[in-house]
Order: sequence, then structure tokens, then C-alpha cells
Amino acid sequence: MTHAPERMAPLAARRLGIDTHHEPTIYLRKDSPVCRSEGFDSLPRVLVTSSGSQSIVASLNMITSNLLNENEVGFSESAWKHLQIESGGPIWLSHPKPIQSISHVRAKVYGHKLDLQQFESIINDIAEGYYSDVHLAAFITACGDDHLDDDEITYLTQAMVNSGSRLDWQLPIVLDKHCVGGLPGNRTTPIVISILTACGVTIPKTSSRAITSPAGTADTMETLTEVSLSIEEMREVVKRVGGCLAWGGSVKLSPADDVLIQVERALDIDSEGQLIASVLSKKIAAGATHVLIDIPVGPTAKVRSQVAADKLANSFKAVAEKLNLTLKILFTDGSQPVGRGIGPALEAYDILAVLQNQPSAPEDLKQRAADIAGAMLEMIQPLSQGEGKIKALETIETGAAWNKFMAICNAQGGMKIPPVACYRYALIAHETGVVSAIDNRQLSKIAKLAGAPADAAAGVELHAKLGQTVQPNDLLLTLHADSIGELNYAVDYLLNHPDIIQLSPQSDTQKEEIQ
Amino acid sequence: MTHAPERMAPLAARRLGIDTHHEPTIYLRKDSPVCRSEGFDSLPRVLVTSSGSQSIVASLNMITSNLLNENEVGFSESAWKHLQIESGGPIWLSHPKPIQSISHVRAKVYGHKLDLQQFESIINDIAEGYYSDVHLAAFITACGDDHLDDDEITYLTQAMVNSGSRLDWQLPIVLDKHCVGGLPGNRTTPIVISILTACGVTIPKTSSRAITSPAGTADTMETLTEVSLSIEEMREVVKRVGGCLAWGGSVKLSPADDVLIQVERALDIDSEGQLIASVLSKKIAAGATHVLIDIPVGPTAKVRSQVAADKLANSFKAVAEKLNLTLKILFTDGSQPVGRGIGPALEAYDILAVLQNQPSAPEDLKQRAADIAGAMLEMIQPLSQGEGKIKALETIETGAAWNKFMAICNAQGGMKIPPVACYRYALIAHETGVVSAIDNRQLSKIAKLAGAPADAAAGVELHAKLGQTVQPNDLLLTLHADSIGELNYAVDYLLNHPDIIQLSPQSDTQKEEIQ
Repeated sequence: MTHAPERMAPLAARRLGIDTHHEPTIYLRKDSPVCRSEGFDSLPRVLVTSSGSQSIVASLNMITSNLLNENEVGFSESAWKHLQIESGGPIWLSHPKPIQSISHVRAKVYGHKLDLQQFESIINDIAEGYYSDVHLAAFITACGDDHLDDDEITYLTQAMVNSGSRLDWQLPIVLDKHCVGGLPGNRTTPIVISILTACGVTIPKTSSRAITSPAGTADTMETLTEVSLSIEEMREVVKRVGGCLAWGGSVKLSPADDVLIQVERALDIDSEGQLIASVLSKKIAAGATHVLIDIPVGPTAKVRSQVAADKLANSFKAVAEKLNLTLKILFTDGSQPVGRGIGPALEAYDILAVLQNQPSAPEDLKQRAADIAGAMLEMIQPLSQGEGKIKALETIETGAAWNKFMAICNAQGGMKIPPVACYRYALIAHETGVVSAIDNRQLSKIAKLAGAPADAAAGVELHAKLGQTVQPNDLLLTLHADSIGELNYAVDYLLNHPDIIQLSPQSDTQKEEIQ
Repeated sequence: MTHAPERMAPLAARRLGIDTHHEPTIYLRKDSPVCRSEGFDSLPRVLVTSSGSQSIVASLNMITSNLLNENEVGFSESAWKHLQIESGGPIWLSHPKPIQSISHVRAKVYGHKLDLQQFESIINDIAEGYYSDVHLAAFITACGDDHLDDDEITYLTQAMVNSGSRLDWQLPIVLDKHCVGGLPGNRTTPIVISILTACGVTIPKTSSRAITSPAGTADTMETLTEVSLSIEEMREVVKRVGGCLAWGGSVKLSPADDVLIQVERALDIDSEGQLIASVLSKKIAAGATHVLIDIPVGPTAKVRSQVAADKLANSFKAVAEKLNLTLKILFTDGSQPVGRGIGPALEAYDILAVLQNQPSAPEDLKQRAADIAGAMLEMIQPLSQGEGKIKALETIETGAAWNKFMAICNAQGGMKIPPVACYRYALIAHETGVVSAIDNRQLSKIAKLAGAPADAAAGVELHAKLGQTVQPNDLLLTLHADSIGELNYAVDYLLNHPDIIQLSPQSDTQKEEIQ
């Protein structure tokens, strides 16, 4: 539909300072002449055009008070940022075109297989901001469970890559890694990158912030140094010290994925296809040629059984092959959190302890980082199985990895000391027992209730590990929070869920069973 | 989680006059102490409690301007109405409990069959307002296409009925009808009810407003009389004149359906199961014992083929039987609009013409209303097939139906003259031809662009019918609008879609084919 803006007098843009999360929203007086003459009052979404002919589709909220004047258009924060206008600037509103690609979403609901072109039209409309939250939720649900086959996952991945920027490091091999997640505290990446650069591998690493977890690698690294680098700054850092540990979000890699992820988070509906497309599209867009996928397997991890892990791994491999990506899968133990800290700063302290080779450093985090770095070295160097890990551990023990980590942080803008939270709560054991189960999901939930990742210092410090014997008054975990309200929420939840850390009474029989 | 409001000082409620459609929304200063201390800034939804211990779950928007004071909570219109508080009244905010029934939605995405209890927990959470739009979209999509079997549709229907009020007319038989829709102008109900009351049948009819169409029966009846009746008023009207034609929305019948329908409308994803549950739950809640379902079948109607119509009819019958509802299906011609008018007032004028037995009355609307009324009479009276229709037509021709219609309108508050629009646009034929196809969907779309149903006088007046021969300068249709902007949108769309009314050149060969 062509409804030329010139038919209407422009309205004046006004930033209202309302954060509607990611969905751009526009506010308009219900009794304004434009609303009456254009029939906007029954419209859920509207096309918003600025004088520079930039346009977005936004949700429309009617104002029935004096919040706005009749000739004003109110903007939510995300609408304001998307359109990049000036206060009072001229704005035209019109009816948006119907979203053609919704018919492909409908076809997917009806169980049809979609082709590359159909995925591209969906993903481009998403990247352009044409989908409302309900459309996004429908697309995610329609692709849920295993409703996408390997061909479709490949098309979806390609469409996601094509919708955004793509980095080119001008290197023959670009190594990358991804952990499927679900394991709190599993912050191996900064250690792995330090090891690899110490081994002479050039590795430009971009990481994401937390989506549903209490911390992402970018959140943790941000407590240690600057992570918001432009692509030129990353290139400069990599040139100087051989690697970087930057946030990928400042570069527009797979932008449709960023939109989808926000709704997936609200929905909590797992989709194998979306997961694979999300991971591989980000890696390909970031310029990776060789990718290691770490899949932790455990009863409360994201992947709960080896059967599910094998199925996921096979899809990953099939899709990677179609996309000419060299991919290696590493199954790891997902039965309990890794290290001690859960939350950006607490995880940063674990990383420092491992890299500085402190005697108190969490051994499980060190071994896991060395396993991953070793497997990655074996992907690109003529090493036999196990030799990679030996090399990796050497770089930690000689201090080479720590030197590289400091060099990366300094090149990115200087090292910082991670913050420490002011409020604490200590959970102690009331009886003697052996730690028999630890719930990863509930621990993540508690760390988030305590304020992580928005409050970098917040989270959980875990003192107990599976198989450990505890005595009365031994510390099981410490909650860290930056506000008393958040500490209370986390404590409430903790006390209402006594099964998060399970103890078995250590009778003589059980002692034998454990041995 | 039990986080007692008394821990916090209350905030002051402020109605902001922002219409966020149906989703309740709450606004809070990002820099307020409560936001900081309770960690609300990263929360998408919040539990809102008033001093009367009433509570709702609302979406939370952060305010980064001076729109609110630090101790205020802003309310959207729907949040304000849901909570029924006073300006400045004390309000407590807290973290909402996780929605347990989302796990059942997830199970449905994974292809599992749900039982009655699972549907009840989903539907009750929806009726309580715990589901955000993305959750609703996920549920609708998961039930999309034919993902529900007849048992599940039955459970969903029962859960929907149980979630709201249920009318009891204290009559042995309560007749009702429903049209599956997709046919613009198909406004038979007011005629059918007039016929049936004229035949001595007591028929308390509640109807809905338009969901995706340019008019619902309640919208059309509202141009002729008062339709917002309380249940006591309806009972009084029925007692006095034998029938009523009221809006069902003032009574809380199947409230979860009202919520779902708003999101279905935005999504435009058909679901046979949701359709059947929506229709039957409303009928059962309205107290019906005998229901006639009119399924128009045509290439641009909602049901496009006889195969699809049979499948839908079989599910309707199976579910009705499980619910002890007597149900009859009537397949009708869905190849073109019915009558001349499309839009509330324009359809009202068609109804008046039929009931007043005017020579210019649209014959198709009259015949269709008589078919339906006849079939309904045959459901409850000892008549053989066809006798019902003869009786029905008699009531129109003798003026008995018109008298009953006037009596109903007068009992409901008096008859009104439907409004007439000020702006018109006439589409004329440029060549001689025979009308070979009429697109129902596009005509509905144009009537909505012109302003229907919000503007009761707006819509489309159709002058051409299938098979009719037109000459150059003959009128094909007239657009009616109440504002120049809406007229322009509708005209733009009309001119960009020249296939809405298709003409075949009337060559000699085609003349024969047509005969």
C-alpha cells in the first residue's frame, strides 16, 4: 500500500523515556485529528517514517490523557534508538503493509517444510523489525522441539548469517568455541583463549552476554576489562597480542538472532533447530572456520542425557558440514556447576585464580579449560589425542597463559578489579552428610534473583561439590547481592527449595557404597 | 515465593491514560529506590497488589524520564481496570511466581497429548491474566492446525466454560446458532431470531462483536438498538417478547477465550481446535442446549473446500456429543458476500429491507436466513425437511418477523436509525463483462480499512453479484467512510488490487459456457 506521507502534516517526535524492552512503541493521542482521520485508534502496529525517509514498524499505544499534545508522537526508548531522530523532528505515521512472510510461519505451523527463500523472507522481516512479539513467539513455537530437519536448520542458519554483518579476519583458520550451556560457573572461555594465544594461535574471540543464565562471557570479561570494541579495535588488539576477548554485540552479527533470543528467553521453549542456527550463524558471521562445541550432559544441565546429546551433536555436525564449517563436539560432565563462582564478578575471580596458578584455584575449571583448549589445538595442529591438553596445562603452569591474559586485557583498555557485593547470606549444613546432588537450574535461578548479571558482583559462591563430606556448620554456599531486596528474594527462594544441594546421611553402609 | 508486601513501603497508584490494548502494563522509575532494592529493572513482568489484596500480573516498563515520581506506579488503562483502585491508592510490587502451566504448553509443543487438568491449569492461568502475549501466542501456535484431537478439544472447551460465568435460562431447550464466518455481509442472526420468536420459540440470543471481520452481529444490532444488557435485563426482554439480540460481552462467558481471541487476531493462525472450543464454550456458557453451526464453503471463505468443511463438521459433532450438546451442521454457499452491505450500519439496512419485505431487499440474505431458521425449527419441532423453511419464509412475508424484530428492539431500549457515512467512493466497470469471482477476504479488508467496525457507518456496498452482466459505467461497489484518511487508505488498497471483483469478457463462447 502506498500512502504517501505528504498527504498529512507531520507530527512532532517526543522521547517519553519509557523502556518497553526491545519492542519499539509509539504513543499517540486518541483524540488527535490524525488519529481520527487516519483511523489509527484500532491499529495495533504503525509505520513510522522520519524526514530522512528512515522507517520502522512500531506497536501503537493510544493516549487518553494529557501526556502528549495532539500534534505529538511519543517514542519509547527502543523506538527512539531505532529511528535515530531529534526531539521535535517531523514524523509521519501510516498503516503498515501486511507482513507477507507470516504465511511461511503459518505453513510451518501446518507442518510444511520451508525452503531457503522462505526462511530468508522470515528472517529479513524479523531483522527489519516487522514482527511483533506475538509473531516472534509463533515462529519460535512453530520451530520448537525438533520441528526443523537438518536442511531447514541449514537454511535458517544461512538466512540468519545473510541478515547481518560478517567479519573477515583474513586468516586461513579462525578457531572458535561455544558451550551449549546450562552449567553455572562454566566460564572456560577467557582461560581457553589465553592458553591458545600462549600457544601461538591467533584467535579473535567475540562472546555474548547472558541470555537466560546469571552470566555470559562478555559479562564476566567486562568486570576485568573493556569489552565493547569496534571491529577495527578488535583487529588492532588481535594484531598486537594474538587474541581478543570482546563482546560480539557491538558488531551486528546475525541481528535476527538477537531479536529471537529475547522472546525465547520469555518463552523458555527449547528448540534444537533454533539453538543450532543461533550458535552456528553467530560463529559463521564472526568469521570462524573451525568450531568446537562443548555439550555438558547432566540431569539438571541443558542437555539431560547422552541420547539427547548424541542427537544434538549429530544435527550440529550435519548442519556444519552443509555450511563448510569444521566442527568438533566435546561432551563434558554436566552434573554440577564448574568452579566456585556463579555470576559475572564471582566467575572472574575463579578465572584469575586458575590463570595465576593459585593453590586454591578450582581444579575442575582448570581441567575443563585445558580439555577444551587441548581439543581445539588438536583440531588445527598435528597432535595426537591428549597431547593438546598437556600443552594447554603447561601454559597455565608456566604462567604463559596468565601473561597472555594480562596482555589482552591491557590491549583492550587496561585491567580492572572485579567488584565485590555488600550483602551476603551464608547457607550452612545442619548435619553431617555427603553431597549427593546439586541442582544447576535452581542455582542459576538463585544467582539471578540475587541480581546477576545486571549487578556484576551478585551471584552464588558454591562451597560444596558432589561427593564431598560436610559437617554441621560447614558452609554450603554464600549468596552475594548488591541490594537488600534482591538478597531477600534469593534467600526466600533458597529456603523454599531445600533440595538444591542434597545431602545423603553418611552411614557406614553408604560410606562403602560411595567408595 | 512468598515475598510479603509489608516489607516494603507502598507506592502511589497513578493512572497514566495509556491504552496498551489488552495487556496490563505498569510503569516505574528506573532510578527509584524500590526498583534498585527489589531488582525490578530487569524484570519483564511484576505482581501488583492493592490494599484490598487484589492482585494482577502486569508487564513492567521502566521510566527513564520525569514522567513519574520516584514513589509512583504508573498504570495503563487495562491494568487500571483490572485492579479497580483509586488514584494515589497504595500499591505493592513484587516478583511474580513462575507460571507452572507453561510446562503444559511446552509439552504440547513437544507433541504430547494434554488431559483435562492440564488444560484447566492453562486456561485458569490465562483467565487470571498470568500469561503475557508471547505465552498466549505460543499456546495458540502449539494448538495450531489440527494439533488437538477431539478429546483435547473437549477438555479445552470444558476448561474454557469452567473459567467463567454460565447462564441458566430455566428453559428445557435453548436454541442457538453460530456461523464459522469468512463471508462479509452474512448478517442472518437478527432475521433468524425474529423468525424464530415469530414462530413462538423462546430464544435468548447473545452475540459477539467483530474479531477479524468488518462487523459482528452485536456491532450491527448496536446501530439499531441498545445491546449492552445485563443478564437480568436480557431475562426481562425474553420474558416480555420471547427473544433478545444482546451483546454477550457484558456477561463474563468463557473469559479466557476473549483473551486468546485478541492474540489470534494479531497472529492470523487458524486452529481448528481453538475455533471449536471457542464457539462451543461460548454457547455452553450462554446456556444453549441445541446449536446450529453454519459453515459457508468457498474459495475465499474461511473454509475453502468441502473436504475441509467435512473434517471441521466431524470434529464439531464429536466434541458436541462428548459435551451433551445437540448440534446440527448446515453447509452454505461461501463463494461471495451475502446481501449488499459490509459493515455494521450497511448490514443493518439490508436486515431492515428483508424484514420489511421491501422489493429491493437482497434475496440471498432472505433465503439464507430462512434456510437457517428453518433448519433450527426442524431441530426442535416435528417437521420434515423443508417444512421449517416454508414456515420461516411465511413469517417474513406476513410481517410477523418484522413485528417481532421491532418488539425486541423496543424491549431492549427503543429502535434507532443506523448512521450513514459522509465520504463515498464509487468503483465502476470500464468494460462489458460477467462477474466471475469476488474475493471475500479482500472485501473484508477494504471495509476495515474504510473504518469498520469502529466507525459503524463505514464499509462497502456491493452492487455486483456472481454471474451478473455489467456494462461500462455500471456501479461495482461503493466505499463508505467517516473520514477522508480512511477513505484514502481503502481506495489505495482497492486500486492496487484490481482482482477483487473479476470480470470475464462476455464473448459468445463464454456466454454459452455460463449458460
